[in-house]
Amino acid sequence: MKNLLLASTSTLHGEPYLAYLLETLEDFFKTVTTVTFIPYARPGGITHDAYTALVAKAFATINKKVVGLHTHKDPAKGIQEAEAFFTGGGNTFLLVQQLHELGLMKPLKSKILTGAPYFGTSAGSNIAGVNMQTTNDMPIVYPSSFETLGLVPFNINAHYLDPDPTSTHNGETRATRIKEFHCFNSTPVVGLREGSFIHIQDKNTTLKGAFKARIFEQNKAPYEGINLHF
Amino acid sequence: MKNLLLASTSTLHGEPYLAYLLETLEDFFKTVTTVTFIPYARPGGITHDAYTALVAKAFATINKKVVGLHTHKDPAKGIQEAEAFFTGGGNTFLLVQQLHELGLMKPLKSKILTGAPYFGTSAGSNIAGVNMQTTNDMPIVYPSSFETLGLVPFNINAHYLDPDPTSTHNGETRATRIKEFHCFNSTPVVGLREGSFIHIQDKNTTLKGAFKARIFEQNKAPYEGINLHF
Repeated sequence: MKNLLLASTSTLHGEPYLAYLLETLEDFFKTVTTVTFIPYARPGGITHDAYTALVAKAFATINKKVVGLHTHKDPAKGIQEAEAFFTGGGNTFLLVQQLHELGLMKPLKSKILTGAPYFGTSAGSNIAGVNMQTTNDMPIVYPSSFETLGLVPFNINAHYLDPDPTSTHNGETRATRIKEFHCFNSTPVVGLREGSFIHIQDKNTTLKGAFKARIFEQNKAPYEGINLHF
Repeated sequence: MKNLLLASTSTLHGEPYLAYLLETLEDFFKTVTTVTFIPYARPGGITHDAYTALVAKAFATINKKVVGLHTHKDPAKGIQEAEAFFTGGGNTFLLVQQLHELGLMKPLKSKILTGAPYFGTSAGSNIAGVNMQTTNDMPIVYPSSFETLGLVPFNINAHYLDPDPTSTHNGETRATRIKEFHCFNSTPVVGLREGSFIHIQDKNTTLKGAFKARIFEQNKAPYEGINLHF
């Protein structure tokens, strides 16, 4: 049993935090009283407490209580007892390093596979994939492994950006980076544009939101798609 | 003894490979007949042979012979016998993973410290720093360590891009990513814009090229600078 909501971004330009998703979240978490928030990705270095407060404020508008996983003495127990999860964005290396170091990757996966709703944005969506190897983030810490939850049989590239034909910059485009990934890895990659999100309910995977996805499969030209059943 | 040339990029928009650096390279390599090329970063997945051929073509215009390090049966011996080095850009994770796996990080550093000229572009410049933790690249492979050559007491962020005030994208800016790096690391970071390069001769470090650098030190506001003596 699986019930996942994986968003490219938490926030659309000029909008409050999570605003574009609140209606969807109200339905997604309709049977849930308290959401356990996983704050380890710390965007911009924000503290666990401050990040949790930001999330709690947004979730209050849909009448959900939020508890930060970092407030549990035994976070593995916190996971076992949780009703539902939200993992926020930030730095994927930091998030993955923390989950491995605290021994939480397996308990979290097991709990989600019992049907506990899991919502992720950005780094929190990345970790639902096979591994974190299509993140855009900077390797600010060294995780003991790049493996992640493997809840879906593909990787996500969050905040996917189309190549800018007017750019004079020589840094690699997102598409070139993913092509390099496919020199060494066969996992399909879903380039998820800001405003798009994926709903996975058991075996049904549905792309929702504003845009098609840019899909990258090994030894194929990238293509626009909505079918995420690989 | 050290003689390093570390460039943000190999190529400026609309120009041939290395064109803007050829005059500088002619002087930098003036005592050298053959440059040993380290092709492991494989931009866009190009083969070692094809990458070396591209470099050889550019270096032929300044009458330098190029040998790919990958053509040596024993690459550590190839390093010991080399006159000078060029490490090209591509994926920093792949470059660092290969240098560690082949046991080349220490021999390369030792040889460079005897005075053998070292030229790097992009990923090849990153590895001159303390570690690779300010790369922009995707973690397509898992290196056994993020440590690099430590030839300079700072890290480089190659292809440095100023935040775009008109952007509606919610992905982290380069400055935010480097701020996150400084939550966990005290190494100064030099944001090196395309068209800029650093010349290090023993204890003298000089910023050259078109732009000032954007400098990031822990617990300080980022600033524009040309003084890279930390």
